[in-house]
Amino acid sequence: MPVDPSLIPFFNPHGVVIIGASHDPSKLGYGLANNLIRSNYQGVVHFVNIKGGELLGQPIYTNVLEVPNPVDLAAVLIPAPFIADALRQCGQRGIQAAIIGSGGFREIGAEGAKLEEEILEVAQQYRIRLIGPNCIGLLDTHLPIDTTFLPPPGPTPGDVAFISHSGAICAAVIDWARGQGYGLSRLVSLGNQADVNETDMLAPIADDPYTRVLALYLEGIKDGRRFIEQARQVVREKPIIALKVGRFEGGQRAVASHTGALAGQESAYDAAFRRAGVLRAETSEEMFDQARALAWCPPTEGRRVAVITNAGGPGVTAADALESLGLELAEFSGATNAALAGILPPAASLHNPVDMLASATPDQFAESLRIVLDDPGVDNAMIIFPTPPMFTAGAVAKAIIPVIHSAVKPVVVAVMGERLIQEAVEHLRAARIPEYRFAERAAAALAALVKRGELLEYAQAEPVTPVQTLKVSETFRVSDVDSILDAYGIPTAKMELAQSADEAVNFANQVGMPVVLKVASPEISHKSDVGGVLLNLGDEAAIRTGYKEILESARSASPRAEIQGVHVQRMIPSGQEVIIGAVQDPQFGAQMMFGSGGTEVEGLKDIAFGLAPLTMLEAERMLESTWAGRKLKGFRNLPPADRDAVLDVLFRLAQLAADHPEIAEIEINPLRVLPKSQGAVAVDVRIQVAN
Amino acid sequence: MPVDPSLIPFFNPHGVVIIGASHDPSKLGYGLANNLIRSNYQGVVHFVNIKGGELLGQPIYTNVLEVPNPVDLAAVLIPAPFIADALRQCGQRGIQAAIIGSGGFREIGAEGAKLEEEILEVAQQYRIRLIGPNCIGLLDTHLPIDTTFLPPPGPTPGDVAFISHSGAICAAVIDWARGQGYGLSRLVSLGNQADVNETDMLAPIADDPYTRVLALYLEGIKDGRRFIEQARQVVREKPIIALKVGRFEGGQRAVASHTGALAGQESAYDAAFRRAGVLRAETSEEMFDQARALAWCPPTEGRRVAVITNAGGPGVTAADALESLGLELAEFSGATNAALAGILPPAASLHNPVDMLASATPDQFAESLRIVLDDPGVDNAMIIFPTPPMFTAGAVAKAIIPVIHSAVKPVVVAVMGERLIQEAVEHLRAARIPEYRFAERAAAALAALVKRGELLEYAQAEPVTPVQTLKVSETFRVSDVDSILDAYGIPTAKMELAQSADEAVNFANQVGMPVVLKVASPEISHKSDVGGVLLNLGDEAAIRTGYKEILESARSASPRAEIQGVHVQRMIPSGQEVIIGAVQDPQFGAQMMFGSGGTEVEGLKDIAFGLAPLTMLEAERMLESTWAGRKLKGFRNLPPADRDAVLDVLFRLAQLAADHPEIAEIEINPLRVLPKSQGAVAVDVRIQVAN
Repeated sequence: MPVDPSLIPFFNPHGVVIIGASHDPSKLGYGLANNLIRSNYQGVVHFVNIKGGELLGQPIYTNVLEVPNPVDLAAVLIPAPFIADALRQCGQRGIQAAIIGSGGFREIGAEGAKLEEEILEVAQQYRIRLIGPNCIGLLDTHLPIDTTFLPPPGPTPGDVAFISHSGAICAAVIDWARGQGYGLSRLVSLGNQADVNETDMLAPIADDPYTRVLALYLEGIKDGRRFIEQARQVVREKPIIALKVGRFEGGQRAVASHTGALAGQESAYDAAFRRAGVLRAETSEEMFDQARALAWCPPTEGRRVAVITNAGGPGVTAADALESLGLELAEFSGATNAALAGILPPAASLHNPVDMLASATPDQFAESLRIVLDDPGVDNAMIIFPTPPMFTAGAVAKAIIPVIHSAVKPVVVAVMGERLIQEAVEHLRAARIPEYRFAERAAAALAALVKRGELLEYAQAEPVTPVQTLKVSETFRVSDVDSILDAYGIPTAKMELAQSADEAVNFANQVGMPVVLKVASPEISHKSDVGGVLLNLGDEAAIRTGYKEILESARSASPRAEIQGVHVQRMIPSGQEVIIGAVQDPQFGAQMMFGSGGTEVEGLKDIAFGLAPLTMLEAERMLESTWAGRKLKGFRNLPPADRDAVLDVLFRLAQLAADHPEIAEIEINPLRVLPKSQGAVAVDVRIQVAN
Repeated sequence: MPVDPSLIPFFNPHGVVIIGASHDPSKLGYGLANNLIRSNYQGVVHFVNIKGGELLGQPIYTNVLEVPNPVDLAAVLIPAPFIADALRQCGQRGIQAAIIGSGGFREIGAEGAKLEEEILEVAQQYRIRLIGPNCIGLLDTHLPIDTTFLPPPGPTPGDVAFISHSGAICAAVIDWARGQGYGLSRLVSLGNQADVNETDMLAPIADDPYTRVLALYLEGIKDGRRFIEQARQVVREKPIIALKVGRFEGGQRAVASHTGALAGQESAYDAAFRRAGVLRAETSEEMFDQARALAWCPPTEGRRVAVITNAGGPGVTAADALESLGLELAEFSGATNAALAGILPPAASLHNPVDMLASATPDQFAESLRIVLDDPGVDNAMIIFPTPPMFTAGAVAKAIIPVIHSAVKPVVVAVMGERLIQEAVEHLRAARIPEYRFAERAAAALAALVKRGELLEYAQAEPVTPVQTLKVSETFRVSDVDSILDAYGIPTAKMELAQSADEAVNFANQVGMPVVLKVASPEISHKSDVGGVLLNLGDEAAIRTGYKEILESARSASPRAEIQGVHVQRMIPSGQEVIIGAVQDPQFGAQMMFGSGGTEVEGLKDIAFGLAPLTMLEAERMLESTWAGRKLKGFRNLPPADRDAVLDVLFRLAQLAADHPEIAEIEINPLRVLPKSQGAVAVDVRIQVAN
């Protein structure tokens, strides 16, 4: 995918100038200079400091304008108030990319925010792209280049790229990576993102041939729809795994519907990552555990896992871990069992998990692995073992590595222990084979490979947009519920507003009895709560009494509410009732909800979310992940309902919500679902237009 | 708590004989002899091997009978077929405790099982207590003694005890413990548990003054009720944390009720651990992460946590981790904020999480910690930091250790990184302060402390037994639903069996119209599925038609079912419908279920489980963890229901199920709950007596 040319100097500059380079080893400006020189960067390095002098055998210029060619990237570490001027000089000097490490901007309050606006204005004036401010810089271990000011050592070269909103997390990740035996390809600390943000970095980093997986630490996403579009393209080539923090920011919003109450930032992020094909990690540890497997393993064809071990306990632990993550223990063919029997002792367990017993030799490990990988019923393998009593774990590792390298199926290894297994761990790491200490983490790595396959499908799916031409002019008022649902082809129970008992009887004769009466008031959300709904009224007398009763109940329950009269609606045949709603998410646009309808939506929480417009895959997932959706296919004496009609309404409402961001919330509750092939009817609809 | 005297020799023998001691370093019998000698065991060590000779400077006897005094423990590692004889000689020699490491017993099939029975018979004959067979032995690092045959090094002395059903897991745990910087006090590998099992070991291990926490790896529990009783006593003094594996053993059971379909081994283990006050870990890693905190931290008074950090990213990560585990960010007092402001720079964040900024000094870490621990609104603290750019992590660790040691509140530390933080980690481990690499694991350790407090209350609660004297003679047949519910004081909708339409009308006049008609057939479980239920019949004609209709529907739906007639029942006023059921669990006895009633119980899965008889704490938890239970307090237009009546029925059914293990399943569905103070009525009840 194409890389914005203005971002190229960040990763491949011809010359770098460090503005704020320092002699003083306790200063970050020294650390940055030292890291850049030590990184073995092959371009030209220049130093600038108003005090001048010499550093690491090179002159320090007092001004950017003095710096000779080539220079196309500035790394800036001077106090915030001086940066605007320095950037102006960069602009005059022709430098169009700058990394601003210095803090003292938006993160410290209003005064800093003003300085940040100022540097952004200068940058725009001179067409300079900015990373930061308030970041630790970026590095590429293969070019190589290191513009961070972190204490050495930097990361070892590798294939995991890391993009982070937190500089402190970058520092931790570099150290974790070293300890956990994987290398980084590129790392970018984005800081305050005055200019370049997480989405901008996706294409340039994915473009790096050494990068095999992108890991993201995100505190938010600036432009949700653009992120989704860029990420969808990247994940076709390389997996992305993201940790999104800041889940519990609290704060109650004013909402007008069940959907509004239940849909939140987190459900939107979940849906967005799924739509973009991005794996979502729950913890930093999980993100890098899984990133290694994503970088190093071939793609998996399915969920069936063969487990090979030398004891019962590790086998059952592995089986538990796999099954709790939705993976399956593979069933071996007769040929596999026979082949295993040929090399293992009689007391060994030949079924999955294969327990070779404590006496298992390194050769038995290797040969058993080869045998199970040959079984067409096996998609993946896990080897799990504590140090064997008679051999070293290292000998086992050496024996299995060639088998794993020649396999076209993913293999992960859980070496149980810590000190006795160091040799094994070092061999596996050097061979780029994902190794873990615990069954659960090895299983989670396999689960990530399976998830990666599923997410590729989500990312490639296309939205379903059933409405090609709107039935009415686009000038309808979006607050007019009936006309907009009608325009999008969503069947409603026709409703008429009666302002007297006589009118109610007239309308009932028009729509056909029996009818439902409902209080008409824009201020009463939950009508049945105030006695504002009467069902199944089949004759004139009942309608007259009902009309009076409803007005009385509603007035006594909500004395200040404006009551316009009573809505008269044909009584829809009974059927399963579901809720379908949409709310606008500030980052990602229209978010859809589906689930069990009625008045107890928030209590039951039998709901699922997705982003509008919906793909078939996502809509199917929403239905199948709720009881309301699964039940549509029929359950015991409940006959199958018109599930296709539900999907159709879901797609139509999603399209409506995506087309009309001015609709803050819209909710059908209930959508009455009639028996198979008989359709579904929006019985009650609520709409809230943005102020 | 009292320790069975027959088990004392295992941990405090005067003399140990190794039967099967070997010269050959590749044999386990050599490893065992070597470990015992190297362990610095202060009693007398004897060796036996039919070949005789000398080993490690001591004579090898050819027979146990030749071994001189003192000797009261045998560690046996000879082939399975010779063990019965060796045990007989032990018995003759007066040795009444033996650890049998050898395999070749029940784990290899029928032949081995026979050998196992044989050794057990010998043991019983001579009153010898057995650990094993097929185990790796046991050790005590403080006595010290080591009767395992694992390759050295053994564990360092510490305060975590480990009881395991898997020898391989013991080997891994010893190695993990070393690498993760905690020591073990005692370790027991139980093997096949021919005699001594997990429950037997609780009291002797808890009795060890060096043990501060017991960690259990369990593949099952032999005598569930006894385990609960023993564990309940142990946890008053020392926490127990258990990993129960083998969750997914599959296999469908024949069940007659929703409760039977939904209650399973795992829900029973969950309820049993809660009743026993035992923490349940999900993974081995979690078990030992949390065991360290349980061993080393003071008890916590609550869920409010203060977080201290030097950067934004770690702070938000910590906040997420805490909140997702149900902990809370403490709100600081004004005094705390003022004190923090006095020592931190102006740009620092004084609110929780406290972000001291990257410039934070070791002294600022220590002083900030002291300040937040002094706040009465803080129950616990977490310090989280990557290596500070200007200081070492070790310097921070040294500064905070004295503050943590003098604190009466728990403090956990997340030091982010791996290689750069080794010095910090070593200081913290030496000071016995729980340290982790990631926020989530540190948060989980604090959550375990909170859970420990809650579980103590569960363990100490007493069962509620509302039924003091049964209303009828205990000779009622348990299959007679009405009489047994009546005996336990559970209100039912009186039901009469009509065998003709005339009888149905007569009964309707007796119980009072309107009535409900239900097909009477022991073979039809879900009556409404076959058209076997008609509601609200208010006159003779309707009852006559209904009687006919029900028989026809039921016969056509279930042509082979025995149909006894139609039950006539008073129509109970409407109200919320819940399900209350009980099934017998093979390990733990009667297991109770509460939740949303009706026909969709398995679909909705709004259910909770507990063991009978129930405590008030457990019953309240069952109600509050389901929507059905929470809704009883009222919801929107739903008025409060008679929640007390639900609790009363729950306790009564629990008592009934506990009293009558011959009832395999009993289920009230629905229990109709009337408005507050008006009671609850069992509308339909199903009972299944064990064959």
